[in-house]
Formats: sequence, structure tokens, C-alpha cells
Amino acid sequence: MTTGKTRVAVNGYGVIGKRVAEAIILQDDMELAGVADITADWRMQVAGGKGFRIYAGRPDASAEMTASGVEVAGNLDELLANADVVVDCTPKKVAAANIETYRKMGRKFILQGGEKHDATGHSFVAECSYESALGREATRVVSCNTTSIVRTLSALKRVGLLHKARGTLLRRATDPWESHLGGIMNTLVPEAEIPSHQGPDAQTVDPELDVVTMAVKVPQTLSHLHYWNVELTRTAVKEEVLDAFRASSRIAMVRIDRGLAALNTVKEWMLDIGRPHGDLYEVAIWEDMLKVDGNELYYAYMVDNQAIVIPETIDAIRALAGTERNGQASMARTDAALGIGRLSRQPTSQ
Amino acid sequence: MTTGKTRVAVNGYGVIGKRVAEAIILQDDMELAGVADITADWRMQVAGGKGFRIYAGRPDASAEMTASGVEVAGNLDELLANADVVVDCTPKKVAAANIETYRKMGRKFILQGGEKHDATGHSFVAECSYESALGREATRVVSCNTTSIVRTLSALKRVGLLHKARGTLLRRATDPWESHLGGIMNTLVPEAEIPSHQGPDAQTVDPELDVVTMAVKVPQTLSHLHYWNVELTRTAVKEEVLDAFRASSRIAMVRIDRGLAALNTVKEWMLDIGRPHGDLYEVAIWEDMLKVDGNELYYAYMVDNQAIVIPETIDAIRALAGTERNGQASMARTDAALGIGRLSRQPTSQ
Repeated sequence: MTTGKTRVAVNGYGVIGKRVAEAIILQDDMELAGVADITADWRMQVAGGKGFRIYAGRPDASAEMTASGVEVAGNLDELLANADVVVDCTPKKVAAANIETYRKMGRKFILQGGEKHDATGHSFVAECSYESALGREATRVVSCNTTSIVRTLSALKRVGLLHKARGTLLRRATDPWESHLGGIMNTLVPEAEIPSHQGPDAQTVDPELDVVTMAVKVPQTLSHLHYWNVELTRTAVKEEVLDAFRASSRIAMVRIDRGLAALNTVKEWMLDIGRPHGDLYEVAIWEDMLKVDGNELYYAYMVDNQAIVIPETIDAIRALAGTERNGQASMARTDAALGIGRLSRQPTSQ
Repeated sequence: MTTGKTRVAVNGYGVIGKRVAEAIILQDDMELAGVADITADWRMQVAGGKGFRIYAGRPDASAEMTASGVEVAGNLDELLANADVVVDCTPKKVAAANIETYRKMGRKFILQGGEKHDATGHSFVAECSYESALGREATRVVSCNTTSIVRTLSALKRVGLLHKARGTLLRRATDPWESHLGGIMNTLVPEAEIPSHQGPDAQTVDPELDVVTMAVKVPQTLSHLHYWNVELTRTAVKEEVLDAFRASSRIAMVRIDRGLAALNTVKEWMLDIGRPHGDLYEVAIWEDMLKVDGNELYYAYMVDNQAIVIPETIDAIRALAGTERNGQASMARTDAALGIGRLSRQPTSQ
């Protein structure tokens, strides 16, 4: 660790892994030890083109990767040997098997939300559980939907307004990059279970949250969309609620009456301001739509499932490494590096 | 009125009008005086093929209709002269102008849900407001979404379980027949206003309902989908709630675990059992998904926006004509003619 920076390995270079790798590059207290994957296709060419050191996620993958022109720096063990923290972004259930390897090598590790809480015993959302993650061996950055739930409900809880919350989640059917491989068309597919898993999952971060979710898959790929009905602890006015949300840098207030009338317009905005991949790291709440009626609050927001966990993962790295004791300070660093917190100066609130 | 049957005119032969006309044919106490429209395209050829007498909805439309091969029996005035009740299925806002004509001719009339409550001063859902419509000059059959809300919440109210209801409505973007003319693709479009209009609209039928709705347009054409969170008057068990819903012939219980896992499968089922146009007249509630937790009830249901108001319109005709004083008796007649109430003997609950 000659640079004094936290050396981070990214295992799994998919939708989340590639974004985590790119975000690590932007942090002045971290360095990217390398990325590991088992694919030999175009994605690794892109990773190589970015100058990332590429490792074979499984020894048997190395030969094909090399044959397809990927410069393979070594196997996963060799990547881990040069890292302080590994961020596991492999597909659901693959990660569980990797844990043994990480432990054997004595590396701190971060799992993504597809894994169970019990796999690490700690679930992470920066604004809520940074301090309890400090110096731990491992944590799990919760899923995109769960992250959005904890961010928004915590904002209401901090000002003493949250009593209970009931949400309906419209889930994007699949991710854009693989939508040619299958999705849903011209239908809606309800999740069979009520509550859907996101409500209980939010309680792994904050057991005090009284939250129930229902979910349905919708035929589009841009992002998730949540509708919430929250019972407040008392009668409130709209401006109090907006202030509570505005206090979080990771919640952006957007307005239909400024043309941000649907998911596609918000994504276009993100692309236009130069966000990598058009990523929306914030929860985007529609400010003009939001309604307070007595002690009841209604609102809808957009969750970019590809992007929202990226800043959380960066903060989780700092928490495990213990290089920053203060969660707010870590978030401020991450936010500055990723351009988070500037949206309120964008056209939505001029 | 030599037959003793109620003579019904249908003005506007679109998505609703054509279904109303076909449903009237099936009632043994009604006869279809004819249908009026202003279009000269394929739709009128179909109407002619069914043997319907076709009238020009506006005098200036007659020439083009005749030129395109439609046999025009006369103008709207002539149709009305031979009818006891007219069902107005013209596009939103056109109906308001027709009211003068209906009144001048002394005809009873039914408007559809796109019109305002004030246009008739009475809003109709058979299970809730049949008796108050008896012998009136006019009523308004409320919209598909509102009909579903009143049906389901009334079922809970009748057994004393309803305290308040909060719903999120996923609205189909456009109707199948005109989806080539424009819709939405790969995005979600939230309605700017909370509450959306359906909650207040349900209160025009039953002012006692404590109901708030939010709505979002989704990129599919099959039907609407509602998610509801209902606070009950007391702790209940699931079977009580199911019994309340089962008591209504116009609510069908469906099951994900029998393969009815999404909107498209339910529509395919309706086509397979020979329903005209694949119409689902019932509100289809997913029985296995439905959850009761203490005094809170969660469920989702499907609303076929093209079909659900058809039986209501038939009942409304009887109520205005005064030929049947009892709402339940009218519903039973309508149900028998349209095959409603037989779904519970379909594969969902075998």
C-alpha cells in the first residue's frame, strides 16, 4: 500500500461492477487494483480500453479470455493479493461461494443486494448504517429499491415525521444491455408475494422502519418507479416534507412542470449533463406531484437501478477500510467525485 | 314499442359503443334500435355485417358513409325517434353537446365515464346506485377504473370491513385498436396530480368512500392494473375478505399459482373461453397474492378498460327504463346473458 490509498478489487464486471470500477477511479483516496470476470466478450475489451487490469474470475476462464485478445493479468487470487477490499459484483448466488476465498485471503469484502443479509450480517446504506460498518470484515450494499426506500424514509424519520409507509414498486423488466435476451412485452407481471422482499430488506438496515411493499414488473428498461403512501406522525405541510427530503444530497427533487414528466426525460437529462451511462445516482422525487393531506403523504420517485448503489458502494469501501470515521464526510467526498448534489441547481428548481 | 322490449340507441360506435350494441342484442328485454357514428371506415362495415341499423351521427357525415358503402338508415334524430333510451358512447366532450338533442327529443340517456358527474347529476355502478337511478332521465356509467373501485370497496363496505383505501393505478397507455396511432414506449408517465381523478370520481357514486388514488401510464395496451392498501375497520382474516369479494358476481378471483400470472394470461383465458373480444367484465383479483395483516389488507387486480362498464351500462338501461325495479335482479339477468359469474368455475378455483 505504497500510495496510502485503499486498493480495491472489483470481482464481476457487469452492470454494477463496471460502474463501481469507474467510480473508484474518481476517488482520490482509492485505487483500482483490477477487475475480474469470466467473460471473454466485448465488455472486457472495453475494460481493457479503459486501462483496467483484468483478472480471470475463475482459472478455467483465463484461456478463452486470452484467446479473444484480453490481456489477462492473472487469476482472482492474484488480484486479491494486491487489494485491501474486494467489491463482489458477480451474479446472484455466485457471490456466496466467493466469500470463502475472500476470508481465506483475509480480505474485507462488499456484497451487493442480490445476496442475503446473513451472508455478511450487516446491510449498508450510507446515511443510515455507515458508522456500524466501520472496520467490519464485510457488509452488503442493499439493492437499488431497498436503498431508495431507506434513503427516503430515513429522511422523514430524521425529522420525526415517519409513522408508517406503504409502497407500490413498478420494476423495470430487465436491463437495457441484455434486453435482447428476454424481457416482457405489452403486459404487467405482479409479484406473487405480498409483501415483496424490499420492505423486509429495508428493515435489515433499519429494523424500526414500518414499511410494506408490493411489486409489479413493467415492460420497460429505464428504471424502477415507486409510489408511496406514508402516514406521518402528525399533520404536516408540504414544505416541511420537501425540506426533509432536500436535506439528503442523495435525493433530487424534480418537476413535471419543467418537462421532467416521465422516466425517459429524466434519463435524457442525465445523459445531457454528461453523467456516465446517463446514471442517476439520486432518488428523483417528483416535487410538484408530491401531496400532503393532513397526516398523509403521497409521492412517487424514480430509482435508477443501475446507478443508485454506486455511491453507496464507494462509501462502504471507506467504512470497511476505516479510512474515514465519519459517514457524512465520506458521503461528501463521494458526492463531490461523482457530481452528486448538483441536480438541485439544474433546471428543476431554477 | 310493439315488442314490449326497451328500444336502445347507441350513439358512437367505438371501443365501448360496439360492445354495448353487442350486449344489448343478448338481452331478452331489449332491442337495438340502431347505432350512430360519423366514421365511414372499416368499423361501420363490421357493424353492417352484424345486421345493425346504422345512422349518421351528424347530418354532414351521411354522404361519406354512403359513398364508402355503408347503408345509412337515417340521421341521429330518426334513430332517437325509434328509441326509449340512448347510450352515448361518443368521445369525451362530444357527449355534452348531444345532451341538448336527447332532451329536446325527450329521450332518456346514459353517458359514459369520460363525462362529468354534473352532466347527469347521477353516477352509476349497478351494485351501488341502481335504485337511485330508477326512472331518472339520465345517468352516467362511471369510468372503468372508477367502476372497479366502487365494486371492490363496496364489497368490503357491505360486510362492515372498509375504513379507508389507498390505491396506485397502472393505466394502459392506449387501446389496442388504435395503438398504431400513438402510445408510449419503454417509459412510465406519472400523472401530475395526486389524488388522480378516480378517487374523487368514486365518491360521486358513494360519497362515504374514504379513497385516494395515484396513477401512472404504462407501456402496454391490455388492461389497467390496480394495487390497493386498505385499512379495515378491525383485524380480519384473509378468508373473510375473500368471502366479501366472492359475494359479488362481478369480481372474479384468479390465481397466479394456476398460471394466471400476468395481464396477458388472463386476456388469453378470456379469448379461449369465447368471450367476445376476449372481454373481462369482472374485476379480476389475485386471490393467492392478496394479504391480510392485522387490520391492513393488500391486493392487486386487473381492470379490462374496454369491457368492465358493459354490464353496468346494460343495468343502467333497465334502471332508466324502469322495467326492473330490483338492482340484483337486473344484474342477474345481465350476468346470465353475458356469461358473468361463471369464472369461479373456471380453472382458477377447481
